[in-house]
Amino acid sequence: MKELQPLFNFDEMATKNANSNGLTGQNIISVDQFDRDKLDYVFARAREMRELVQRVGGCDLLKGNILTALFYEPSTRTSASFIAAMERLGGSVIPITQGVQFSSVSKGETLADTIRTLEQYSDVIVLRHPETGSAQMAADYASIPVINAGDGAGEHPTQALLDLFTIREELGTLDGLKVAMVGDLRYGRTVHSLTKLLLQYNVSLRFVSPEILRMPLSIMNQVIDAKVNVRETHDVADVIENADVLYVTRVQKERFSDLSQYEQVKDQYEITTELMGQAKEKMVIMHPLPRVGEIHYNVDKDPRAAYFRQVQNGMFIRMALLAAVLGKA
Amino acid sequence: MKELQPLFNFDEMATKNANSNGLTGQNIISVDQFDRDKLDYVFARAREMRELVQRVGGCDLLKGNILTALFYEPSTRTSASFIAAMERLGGSVIPITQGVQFSSVSKGETLADTIRTLEQYSDVIVLRHPETGSAQMAADYASIPVINAGDGAGEHPTQALLDLFTIREELGTLDGLKVAMVGDLRYGRTVHSLTKLLLQYNVSLRFVSPEILRMPLSIMNQVIDAKVNVRETHDVADVIENADVLYVTRVQKERFSDLSQYEQVKDQYEITTELMGQAKEKMVIMHPLPRVGEIHYNVDKDPRAAYFRQVQNGMFIRMALLAAVLGKA
Amino acid sequence: MKELQPLFNFDEMATKNANSNGLTGQNIISVDQFDRDKLDYVFARAREMRELVQRVGGCDLLKGNILTALFYEPSTRTSASFIAAMERLGGSVIPITQGVQFSSVSKGETLADTIRTLEQYSDVIVLRHPETGSAQMAADYASIPVINAGDGAGEHPTQALLDLFTIREELGTLDGLKVAMVGDLRYGRTVHSLTKLLLQYNVSLRFVSPEILRMPLSIMNQVIDAKVNVRETHDVADVIENADVLYVTRVQKERFSDLSQYEQVKDQYEITTELMGQAKEKMVIMHPLPRVGEIHYNVDKDPRAAYFRQVQNGMFIRMALLAAVLGKA
Repeated sequence: MKELQPLFNFDEMATKNANSNGLTGQNIISVDQFDRDKLDYVFARAREMRELVQRVGGCDLLKGNILTALFYEPSTRTSASFIAAMERLGGSVIPITQGVQFSSVSKGETLADTIRTLEQYSDVIVLRHPETGSAQMAADYASIPVINAGDGAGEHPTQALLDLFTIREELGTLDGLKVAMVGDLRYGRTVHSLTKLLLQYNVSLRFVSPEILRMPLSIMNQVIDAKVNVRETHDVADVIENADVLYVTRVQKERFSDLSQYEQVKDQYEITTELMGQAKEKMVIMHPLPRVGEIHYNVDKDPRAAYFRQVQNGMFIRMALLAAVLGKA
Repeated sequence: MKELQPLFNFDEMATKNANSNGLTGQNIISVDQFDRDKLDYVFARAREMRELVQRVGGCDLLKGNILTALFYEPSTRTSASFIAAMERLGGSVIPITQGVQFSSVSKGETLADTIRTLEQYSDVIVLRHPETGSAQMAADYASIPVINAGDGAGEHPTQALLDLFTIREELGTLDGLKVAMVGDLRYGRTVHSLTKLLLQYNVSLRFVSPEILRMPLSIMNQVIDAKVNVRETHDVADVIENADVLYVTRVQKERFSDLSQYEQVKDQYEITTELMGQAKEKMVIMHPLPRVGEIHYNVDKDPRAAYFRQVQNGMFIRMALLAAVLGKA
Repeated sequence: MKELQPLFNFDEMATKNANSNGLTGQNIISVDQFDRDKLDYVFARAREMRELVQRVGGCDLLKGNILTALFYEPSTRTSASFIAAMERLGGSVIPITQGVQFSSVSKGETLADTIRTLEQYSDVIVLRHPETGSAQMAADYASIPVINAGDGAGEHPTQALLDLFTIREELGTLDGLKVAMVGDLRYGRTVHSLTKLLLQYNVSLRFVSPEILRMPLSIMNQVIDAKVNVRETHDVADVIENADVLYVTRVQKERFSDLSQYEQVKDQYEITTELMGQAKEKMVIMHPLPRVGEIHYNVDKDPRAAYFRQVQNGMFIRMALLAAVLGKA
């Protein structure tokens, strides 16, 4: 073999590190990891990310870093958001986002082995998996940060962070707000996580759901222990006049064993322009999307309809988190 | 929270804008948007893109920009072409190119909502959708440019532009040419769009098809109104000696209710080396690909066989269009 | 059309080329292409790649280059490894990695046409295809380098190179080693290719398999012709004490027509901590992964367990090969 000239001059390739408020190298598994100081930090960085995207589109902060998007269930919205976040920061992506085909790939391999394989190629893993607890398990095996993008009935912490950030950005504050959550409060992962985060602020909560879809005991007890002003009701009309935030989720027909029950209640959970006529002038309607009619399309033009801005905030929050766990923010 | 140092110095991150001939921020939905001036502009930029790729591979012109490739039907050829175009200009891609799985992702969401979600992450959306008119509908909802990559029986404008560009580059001009289109002229989206573009030039047209696959009335009437020299025939042998361009498409068995009809005609639409022996020395054979035998494989060595060069021209045209609609060309 | 300012200044966009030891522009189809000099070269470059990744994550060496990952069968591990390799070197990827859906895309197109299409967009093609010989066929048609990522029962040369590199890096040498291969030696593509590469070194070989899964004649005859010290046996216990390398593959139930035979032998091919107690202190256990139990999970903590480091070496080897065939190393 002939004498080789080295390909790289490493001295010239410096990297910079910045204050990440203790998030460097951390996993993002649950909203329980975020106290107000960490939330303030992530929101401040997310605002910088918004300015970055609006002014110049992207940067090289995460150049040379690779994110593996490992989605055992397909979720275009969430995977696209993480991919965009990584790419706008100059990083690269290994997209494994086709839930269906992944089974044939893993060939009976355990999640632990798949994680320990993919971490050899990458700097951070974003995991969507149908089983509760899978994200923590993956994090236990991985030597690189794992971000939970939804583990079954468990958590979806980046969704809760983007929801909270959206309220903060739309209304300028979190303290003192009346937040109404509407729809399926029993199975809705997003309302559970958002509620837990809101308990750190001085808010009033209104839970609006059919009887069989009421907020579960575990969450209600946390709310009560926090001595937060809270009420449960069956009708949006009860809360619409005073709500600062109307967080809407879908009431799915499949949740009802008795379909006549569903037919009775469903109209009470449709957000219409008429209903919005009773709401305050300064408030926001939010939705984790996708929606299937529970917010009428003619509400979209209402300046209080924040759900598409909420989508974009998801990208900013994920940019902030990726930069932080990779030690570059 | 500790005092944060800002991550970015925006003053240092300048962007440049250039003359885009009115295409900045525009949607690309139909060939009807392109007059000769715009065609000249796109072709001039496409030539620059070819030189860029051949000399250095790529550049940073679209760095910080993200293209969402949203394919409700899979089309490897077209999606790969757009992905390559974006990547060679330094941009990034969110690839949603698995038609089959997308349904599970959209969970009943309307196309309008999907578009308004994905535009939050990206700077341009390339859409392939089975329904005619869907691209225009998407563009109506989107606040970022939408490029139509095929909307059912509707249009596929970038295919028509690359076809026209290929003729221009292969033969040095468009005016004065005899262009023969062969095969399925009834259902072939590409021949309809190419015909419309050619009407802007001083060409003669020859349409060669089985009776049941003749050019539709709407296109024929446009041709006649343009007072172009045009003839229809059933046999390639009638046009092969004088054609400057032989644009071949596939005659699909499934179009015939009477299979004996198909068996009778199919040989008249196979391009063989024998047939090419009768053609002019300076002419081109083109095909939108994929082919399934309608051009024999031993014709591939013929220097007049332009169909793979045509594929590459597609990448150059898409590079030119992406740079233009994103205001960087 | 208004006068156009050129978009690019090509004089400023220089590219650099370096010694690639004859690999520039070459296809990587078979391990037979690699003599000791080429192996030394690839390993030296792979070590540089490891240092690059560990120190700065990535670089711009292949900026402006595009890899098409064309996987007719899905293989997350291999495709992710190539994607990461390309991205860490600053190149871009067209990911066509969903075997199942590809059929609908190719619409009856021949592999030759698909290759000649995709090469128009890209600088190198990585091909996984179920048919033996398909990689060579693709290479015959392509004018850009083709890298074989597995062609059915044929070869998977980058796997063999990463296996050999792992042995070299773990033990500091290849000469003088006792290498035991365990499990399915009949159908295991990886053990065949690794054996062929090892014949270039002064090694002893031990082949451990059930009777019906013994090393095929063609490989055995090459081993015998090379006058290498070789023995075949049915039991790992026979080789564990002296082995420097234990290369484990899975014994698949489906290979046995008589399941009682399988039940009899399977325990002899399970690597346990007890068994490892008999092995030398300085040796390595390797596995091409995925595993389904043939190495017990409590062996993972053993420092001699090299299989996840082996995964990462795959990325370094592929980085080295990509840089070499693209003329940048």
